Amino acid sequence: MRISQLAAESGVSVPSIKFYLREGLLHDGVRTSATQAEYDGEHVRRLRLIRALLGPGGLTVVGAQSLLGTMEHPPEHAHDLLGAAHAASAPAGKANRDDLDAVRAEAASWGWDVSGCDPLVLSALGDALERLRDADFAVPPSVMRAYVDAMKSVAAAEVAEIPTDSADAAVRYVVLGTILVEPLLLAMRRLAQETASLERFGVAPPGELGA
Amino acid sequence: MRISQLAAESGVSVPSIKFYLREGLLHDGVRTSATQAEYDGEHVRRLRLIRALLGPGGLTVVGAQSLLGTMEHPPEHAHDLLGAAHAASAPAGKANRDDLDAVRAEAASWGWDVSGCDPLVLSALGDALERLRDADFAVPPSVMRAYVDAMKSVAAAEVAEIPTDSADAAVRYVVLGTILVEPLLLAMRRLAQETASLERFGVAPPGELGA
Repeated sequence: MRISQLAAESGVSVPSIKFYLREGLLHDGVRTSATQAEYDGEHVRRLRLIRALLGPGGLTVVGAQSLLGTMEHPPEHAHDLLGAAHAASAPAGKANRDDLDAVRAEAASWGWDVSGCDPLVLSALGDALERLRDADFAVPPSVMRAYVDAMKSVAAAEVAEIPTDSADAAVRYVVLGTILVEPLLLAMRRLAQETASLERFGVAPPGELGA
Repeated sequence: MRISQLAAESGVSVPSIKFYLREGLLHDGVRTSATQAEYDGEHVRRLRLIRALLGPGGLTVVGAQSLLGTMEHPPEHAHDLLGAAHAASAPAGKANRDDLDAVRAEAASWGWDVSGCDPLVLSALGDALERLRDADFAVPPSVMRAYVDAMKSVAAAEVAEIPTDSADAAVRYVVLGTILVEPLLLAMRRLAQETASLERFGVAPPGELGA
């Protein structure tokens, strides 16, 4: 199909398609003349994936480039997939914190050994903890334990399902499952907060604070 | 203290402080002359909070205004706090989806009744699910169950700790605990993925994919 048809089929405008082609996010079509190329269903699927990655709360163009590159050239060892997915979705130009030992010690105080973990991910944890401290907000210990347990059981279920029969399927699962699931989890948490709050406090007939 | 001292104390530049004053995020100091005002420790604390709210991955100025307003004028009933916190951190101008029944039905298929929940939060769930569909990514059923269980146990622990002795403490706990904890949970999930992946696949001596 021509680029105008690809735009109609995918719901992505022609200027955006040209931008993705220039940035190397979308692979070229088969050139049929000096000014025309032919696109196919694979281009439609790829455009949908690009939109999902760049969508609200999603990746930068540079992050998407790195991530699509990983999907095309998967690392040799399954464990390295995660590192690639995590790196692609880290903020651009983000450096490691210089207090990673303190971050590891804090995790250890929750009974969690994260010594083998990627410095960039540990830095993200350190940033999140620092923001809480800056706002003078202390997570109650029972809640912090619930966070650690919940995230461990989430990750165990996710990693158990990483397919190992094809590198292509594995990288797709890890990359998309890590990044696109984040807004899903956060929305689920808010819904669960609302149901838990309704259970504890009941629906409001306006009155004073408390149950 | 003068505004220059407030800047030194808080690490926030004078132009930024003036911007926050103009936007009503920071309360005025006590005017001592036509061109000078006196600030105190409460201004330093508030500036730290503003920076935490507007920080990376954080709120827009409009979201922060709404949220600080909620903290100053807390709703009467504890359950409404959550709604206010969730609304302040929703994307500006976001409208409800028109397929909320389908979103509720999908949650019901995971054994979860979200019929009483805020339409904006249900819309966020619908958006997240749509992004996964757009990318042709199916969350395995065992993983979806793990997500639901994990977020229910997180929310139960959080809501159980909402303080009910003071409206001020309650609103602070709910608002900051909802919004500032999101990057913490996402970083924890990634760390847990790495430890689970190491457990399943071991460290890489470069070889083929799989355990």
